Amino acid sequence: MGRFITITVIFKGNIVGSMMTRRLAEFVSSLSYSDIPPDATEMARLCFLDFLGVALRGSSEMSGLMALGAMGKGSGGATIIGHGRGDTERAALLNGIFAHNLDLDDGHRGAQMHPGSCVIPAALAAAEATGATFRDFITAMVAGYEAAIFMGILANPGHRELGFHTTGTCGTFGAAAAASRIICSDVDAVVNALGIAGTQAAGLLESDHAGTMAKHLHAGRAAQSGLISARLAFHGFTGAESVIEGDEGFLRAMCRSDGYGGEAPEVGAFHIRNVYLKRYPVCRHLHSTLDAAAEIIRENDFRASEIEEVIVSTYRIAAEHDSYSPATVEAVRQSLPVSLGILLEGGELRVEDLEGGFSPEMASRIRIEVDPDMEELRNMRPSRVTVRLRNGEVLTAYRELPRGEPEEPYTWDDIVEKFRELNPGYETERLEVIKEADQEPVAEVMLELSGR
Amino acid sequence: MGRFITITVIFKGNIVGSMMTRRLAEFVSSLSYSDIPPDATEMARLCFLDFLGVALRGSSEMSGLMALGAMGKGSGGATIIGHGRGDTERAALLNGIFAHNLDLDDGHRGAQMHPGSCVIPAALAAAEATGATFRDFITAMVAGYEAAIFMGILANPGHRELGFHTTGTCGTFGAAAAASRIICSDVDAVVNALGIAGTQAAGLLESDHAGTMAKHLHAGRAAQSGLISARLAFHGFTGAESVIEGDEGFLRAMCRSDGYGGEAPEVGAFHIRNVYLKRYPVCRHLHSTLDAAAEIIRENDFRASEIEEVIVSTYRIAAEHDSYSPATVEAVRQSLPVSLGILLEGGELRVEDLEGGFSPEMASRIRIEVDPDMEELRNMRPSRVTVRLRNGEVLTAYRELPRGEPEEPYTWDDIVEKFRELNPGYETERLEVIKEADQEPVAEVMLELSGR
Repeated sequence: MGRFITITVIFKGNIVGSMMTRRLAEFVSSLSYSDIPPDATEMARLCFLDFLGVALRGSSEMSGLMALGAMGKGSGGATIIGHGRGDTERAALLNGIFAHNLDLDDGHRGAQMHPGSCVIPAALAAAEATGATFRDFITAMVAGYEAAIFMGILANPGHRELGFHTTGTCGTFGAAAAASRIICSDVDAVVNALGIAGTQAAGLLESDHAGTMAKHLHAGRAAQSGLISARLAFHGFTGAESVIEGDEGFLRAMCRSDGYGGEAPEVGAFHIRNVYLKRYPVCRHLHSTLDAAAEIIRENDFRASEIEEVIVSTYRIAAEHDSYSPATVEAVRQSLPVSLGILLEGGELRVEDLEGGFSPEMASRIRIEVDPDMEELRNMRPSRVTVRLRNGEVLTAYRELPRGEPEEPYTWDDIVEKFRELNPGYETERLEVIKEADQEPVAEVMLELSGR
Repeated sequence: MGRFITITVIFKGNIVGSMMTRRLAEFVSSLSYSDIPPDATEMARLCFLDFLGVALRGSSEMSGLMALGAMGKGSGGATIIGHGRGDTERAALLNGIFAHNLDLDDGHRGAQMHPGSCVIPAALAAAEATGATFRDFITAMVAGYEAAIFMGILANPGHRELGFHTTGTCGTFGAAAAASRIICSDVDAVVNALGIAGTQAAGLLESDHAGTMAKHLHAGRAAQSGLISARLAFHGFTGAESVIEGDEGFLRAMCRSDGYGGEAPEVGAFHIRNVYLKRYPVCRHLHSTLDAAAEIIRENDFRASEIEEVIVSTYRIAAEHDSYSPATVEAVRQSLPVSLGILLEGGELRVEDLEGGFSPEMASRIRIEVDPDMEELRNMRPSRVTVRLRNGEVLTAYRELPRGEPEEPYTWDDIVEKFRELNPGYETERLEVIKEADQEPVAEVMLELSGR
């Protein structure tokens, strides 16, 4: 474990640690598969499985098809998920959009971001282009998640408060780390790659707030920028060694300096182990409510028409997702009453349930309130759902966290099941290759996964 | 003139005008060639001429060749300046790098940015891909410069103070405006294009500060992001209509809210008329000093070895460019004593003079001081150079602004001369087509310009 670098420098107020970018690059550059704890490589495989299922379905979603139409596949041998092969850089962009457009991709609470949809497309494109093995790819994934989550924890909550979408911004660092782990052989090139990436880091929450597809683009653009950064750095193009911590660098420009007040996050903690996976294609803040409601449905026998009233008591941020009349499917994904209404009426909340429209009448029976006690539960996402039936019966359930968090993770079989639900007709036996193909080139693995 | 929209809303403190993005889109969408004052179209042609000369030389510079090596040209019919043809999106990226890597491209004082290297590559790639005429291209250029400079004035100085490089950030809006003027036919698509662009706006001054090539990438990435935005929007992809002014939008995230305190800049002022052009391949803040020194050299007969001491009295920002031992050619471009030393020794300051190394001895005879009176001259860039010869003679010259500003513009012939100096062997008679080819498709014009 001697090679793991712990950044103990505290970034507080205007005091910014020196050498952050280089230390992160040292970690990325020196990481080898044998350094990684088995539960972290196992999680990387699970995240990749999850990514594939989500992106394959996302590849036929509206925003994915529009992006494909606008950009074209270009020519080349890179996998463009669901659409054959094309240009390497284009693949990173499109696969990122495909992986993020259903709001079903993995995430990290503390970093407030979705690492997989940025990191994996960059690692995949780099690995296919260079003939890397699947084991190299898993190593790159772990390096990329580490960089993305480190940056997300470092930058937040002040970064988010300013209006930045951490997935786009910190995702760019993660993508560059992953791609440069594969492409660049020496630490200086990785430093340059991070420098080039940091200066491209972008993404405004206004895109999300306004319910637009531009939010989907953040992941794709991060993946593509990261890939470009690694390729440029490999060819000698230079980036700032002080891009994170410098006077005119990322932290100073893009974080409220009082936002980060705790201990600096570690590099080498293998943060991928704390990633969550999702089952509902809606904003993560709605999930504990939905899990609680699903529990009530599962354990009781009643029909939606028998419901008189539903009361959701939850933490403030979740409660603020209170639009009763969302105008686009992107906005439905941010609406607690509508998501919950669909679940209560149909018993499920799959991608196709969101697309089938919704009943405002059911949503109107749902009341949302903030529970002040729940605000005290730091880094938890508590919710209590109470269903009052017309016959006077009261059904209730409480969740402190949604399912799929590291505290209650989904298993391989759960995610295979998610894959199957999202992609009916896909022969899920093929997915076993993800567990077994370490010595194979990634390009071969992708051929096997896409049925050749 | 009825179609020009003037944004009179003041952005001050937390008060942000509504509808800024839409109003900008309305201007872009409705602008036609006949609306544009002749001095603005004339300036657009001059900026294009300047761009071509700079980018052609930049296409064989180190960072340009590295980027070309890393990315490849891809396949397609877009002009990749100096390197034939390739993919449209790649062309925008590479031409932006080529145009910006010599620090010789056009700029705007108030906006604190270089619009041409972002706007023109996006407009060019869009025009070639769609068969647009040269007149449409000039119209798109004017729209793009307007958007970029509007955003730059609006965002600065607070944007720059945070550490953002306006060329990369506001350049993305300009590139999207230019490309969408060509690609998108209705205003809603332009709104979406600006929304998609704004959420990709990026660029940290740390890249510049650290003397890295990542600064060159800012222009290329802005051009490419703008082009992508227009293409996505044309295909129905959505972006936030409130991307500039929204609660989680560009101004709030990326400007000090107290940075912008004056009157809001106008849209429809045809800001392109206030663009400056450069003759020395170094930071603009060094130019009035260099012009003053060149005047002294021109009007007096002495040799560099006769110089005992040189005193430069100038404004603070210029005086801060005081590195006496720059380590890279990018850093030489930011060094006042070294740039001036080269000019005094060789009588010229061309691209090749920078690359030939420099004499620290000459630079050591140069003393730089801040003149407090010059600080009072708002929006001027004053400098006085005093050369003291060994024989006791004292030679002095003063410039309030460098040459090439709108107050003392370069002529067509000046810029043809710059073109020729940068690109010996190029038959500059060909450049006349820029004045005459309005009805021709841009693709044809580019063939003529590149000698078919």
